[in-house]
Amino acid sequence: MKIFLAELLGTMILILLGNGVVANTVLKKSKGENSGWLTICFGWALGVAIPAVMFGSVSGAHFNPALTIGLAVIGKFAWSSVPTYLAAQFIGAFIGAVLVFTYFYPHYKETEDKGAKLATFATGPAIKNTVFNFISEFIGTAILIFTILGVGTANVAEGVGPIIVGGIILAMGVCLGGTTGYAINPFRDLAPRIAHAILPIPGKGDSDWGYAWIPVVGPLLGGVVGAILFNLVF
Amino acid sequence: MKIFLAELLGTMILILLGNGVVANTVLKKSKGENSGWLTICFGWALGVAIPAVMFGSVSGAHFNPALTIGLAVIGKFAWSSVPTYLAAQFIGAFIGAVLVFTYFYPHYKETEDKGAKLATFATGPAIKNTVFNFISEFIGTAILIFTILGVGTANVAEGVGPIIVGGIILAMGVCLGGTTGYAINPFRDLAPRIAHAILPIPGKGDSDWGYAWIPVVGPLLGGVVGAILFNLVF
Amino acid sequence: MKIFLAELLGTMILILLGNGVVANTVLKKSKGENSGWLTICFGWALGVAIPAVMFGSVSGAHFNPALTIGLAVIGKFAWSSVPTYLAAQFIGAFIGAVLVFTYFYPHYKETEDKGAKLATFATGPAIKNTVFNFISEFIGTAILIFTILGVGTANVAEGVGPIIVGGIILAMGVCLGGTTGYAINPFRDLAPRIAHAILPIPGKGDSDWGYAWIPVVGPLLGGVVGAILFNLVF
Amino acid sequence: MKIFLAELLGTMILILLGNGVVANTVLKKSKGENSGWLTICFGWALGVAIPAVMFGSVSGAHFNPALTIGLAVIGKFAWSSVPTYLAAQFIGAFIGAVLVFTYFYPHYKETEDKGAKLATFATGPAIKNTVFNFISEFIGTAILIFTILGVGTANVAEGVGPIIVGGIILAMGVCLGGTTGYAINPFRDLAPRIAHAILPIPGKGDSDWGYAWIPVVGPLLGGVVGAILFNLVF
Repeated sequence: MKIFLAELLGTMILILLGNGVVANTVLKKSKGENSGWLTICFGWALGVAIPAVMFGSVSGAHFNPALTIGLAVIGKFAWSSVPTYLAAQFIGAFIGAVLVFTYFYPHYKETEDKGAKLATFATGPAIKNTVFNFISEFIGTAILIFTILGVGTANVAEGVGPIIVGGIILAMGVCLGGTTGYAINPFRDLAPRIAHAILPIPGKGDSDWGYAWIPVVGPLLGGVVGAILFNLVF
Repeated sequence: MKIFLAELLGTMILILLGNGVVANTVLKKSKGENSGWLTICFGWALGVAIPAVMFGSVSGAHFNPALTIGLAVIGKFAWSSVPTYLAAQFIGAFIGAVLVFTYFYPHYKETEDKGAKLATFATGPAIKNTVFNFISEFIGTAILIFTILGVGTANVAEGVGPIIVGGIILAMGVCLGGTTGYAINPFRDLAPRIAHAILPIPGKGDSDWGYAWIPVVGPLLGGVVGAILFNLVF
Repeated sequence: MKIFLAELLGTMILILLGNGVVANTVLKKSKGENSGWLTICFGWALGVAIPAVMFGSVSGAHFNPALTIGLAVIGKFAWSSVPTYLAAQFIGAFIGAVLVFTYFYPHYKETEDKGAKLATFATGPAIKNTVFNFISEFIGTAILIFTILGVGTANVAEGVGPIIVGGIILAMGVCLGGTTGYAINPFRDLAPRIAHAILPIPGKGDSDWGYAWIPVVGPLLGGVVGAILFNLVF
Repeated sequence: MKIFLAELLGTMILILLGNGVVANTVLKKSKGENSGWLTICFGWALGVAIPAVMFGSVSGAHFNPALTIGLAVIGKFAWSSVPTYLAAQFIGAFIGAVLVFTYFYPHYKETEDKGAKLATFATGPAIKNTVFNFISEFIGTAILIFTILGVGTANVAEGVGPIIVGGIILAMGVCLGGTTGYAINPFRDLAPRIAHAILPIPGKGDSDWGYAWIPVVGPLLGGVVGAILFNLVF
């Protein structure tokens, strides 16, 4: 139960802060409007690093099915625990999206751009191209999982690990995020997209379900490949 | 007495640096003019992290009545010490605001925008909406206190804790700061607002007392809820 | 073999993230387009720091012939291991460049500026001037190797060293990067430049081979001088 | 001798990186041109933090007469060592300024703005006002020395101290740097100003000697007051 709560609350904070920084940057009349890509990348990095410090010793701080399943595939996480983790992550991500919507509600009303409103929930491609969008999410997540597991083998002082993981998320954004918006986490994209479809967002557009499978399948396969690569190298 | 001084000086440095970065960014002819939201967020993060390193072992480095009272509610801080802490925090925040005014005096004279001048003292809403402005300060502070107390349970190397707390403050700004300017601390807003009302600021406008209760009551209630949530989960 | 793989994969990640941040910032329609020099500098810093954490205890995390040869010159690295390290670094840098091209392929098609496309592979001078371009790469790399080896002598908690090395790379960019784009690593420039010449990049220009020797010879000599200076002082 | 060299080389790196980031940002045709105030502040922070890691255990990493003399006044540094430290700091700062000039020489030729060229050597006021310019340098340095000495009393893991000191320098810039350009170090300003007067800078203006005493006397007095305040509180 404590583990379930850790994954749920950790993923909730991840989405509240991560989708929060997008809302803070793209919604109209926010004091942080147009504060730029680097700001967005810092927000997501902190969104992972902060709950990673809080819940690392409780649940391992996955917050991402690509990591949970990748670890299970290489035998470093029990398959029997996978459903619990995934359920907690999905619920947490959904609640996080609802919190962002509540928090920024007046700014949703002021924003006309339907794409901007969707962007505060789910990712979308900069250039629509099924093959290369998939490749982006696949390679990005493979590198994410490979580096996270790799730094996990290093001998670092307590508390430094989550800071370095935050640095990995920052790198994902500043270095590789511009093609598809770096979902690199199936539920980070899917759960808020469902929230977008359900919530009474003023003047919202469609939830772009045609694209929705890419940030789910790409990260899942990428995570498995990243974990296998880690297993081969380390 | 040493604890009183620690909370006073720590809160003074917090406000000097935090309101300092606002002044540095919004007042006319400052070399840092228009340096942007991310810069402001870094300033506040450092404004908390630096005195937290200095005074953490002396007073616990609260610098915020929402934390002091939240901890008292869950029985982790003696109610008998609350008045001392609050007095020190209030005085420190007030002195900090006076220092910012002194430091940037020639720039106040060059700045016509009354709102900009008030912003270097107290927060204000991006979109005036009593319910949602309150919700912003309430949720923001609940997350702040929950995460600060949560990372406090983690086993981290000495000196790393305040850096992570700085990261939490950075996240508060970049992810959630755009709605009300993230007071998330009753005295961070109230004491400098009183200073704004009292000080002979050239061409100042009113101190927006109609809004002043929100960044006081919202953070206080949010802090209590965040502390209770922490108590339930950890 | 494990050491070979560590240098290869580490340098691959370095180039994937480092040239990735350039592509993410300069190629058309990237969500990170025009996100600025500081963002680019953070990308390169993370590109070094992350694999340095992962592979530091395996290979020493050189990823740079200037460091490998500099250490060999002052007798702190076996000359017999130099060819292995250099081969791994070259192959890793080449694969990294191919990955960046694959990852951002649709954006290469959208970008007309031949110079921008070359910049996602190799460096070029802001002002063409053989003597001073050479001096930039020479001084920059001397300072890089001197400071990296210098901080290596300090007693720091585990995991903090690579963070400080990341800070050195960040400093190289923000403080000294504007003249020649801070190659400060022969293979970081040469291997991707060869990739640029070979790969079927849509609408590419020439690979500027006339300049190519400067970011190879300058860093090599600078690295040797930095290492000797280190040996004299520490 | 080793201590002398540590202070000399540390101050040299401080000025090379610190004035380097100014040159990189304000000189024409630099790839980092117009990269903004936050970038400049990061450069100075790294300029202090990197040599602080390298030389902390050798000389205490002062690099600043305000710190050396402040410590001597409160009896925590031998007066007999003050001349050695000051000589090393002055020489190091001067060499650092010469290196910046050499490194960016073609960009000095491309830059017409005499004020921009002077800014890559010495500080100047945003609004000329003798009293308040002095107050800025005085308060800024008092806070600098008080916080540096204060964090020095905290129990932090090895290597974390210099990172926090870098954070203090970052705060000095983003929060308080916009009035006078935060010299907060007598030789950081004076030695490069002398270099500006001597060096054959193409199309240079005057070295603004009328202002030169403020960033020398203000920091010296502020440093003494900061050190005394530290002595009273801790």
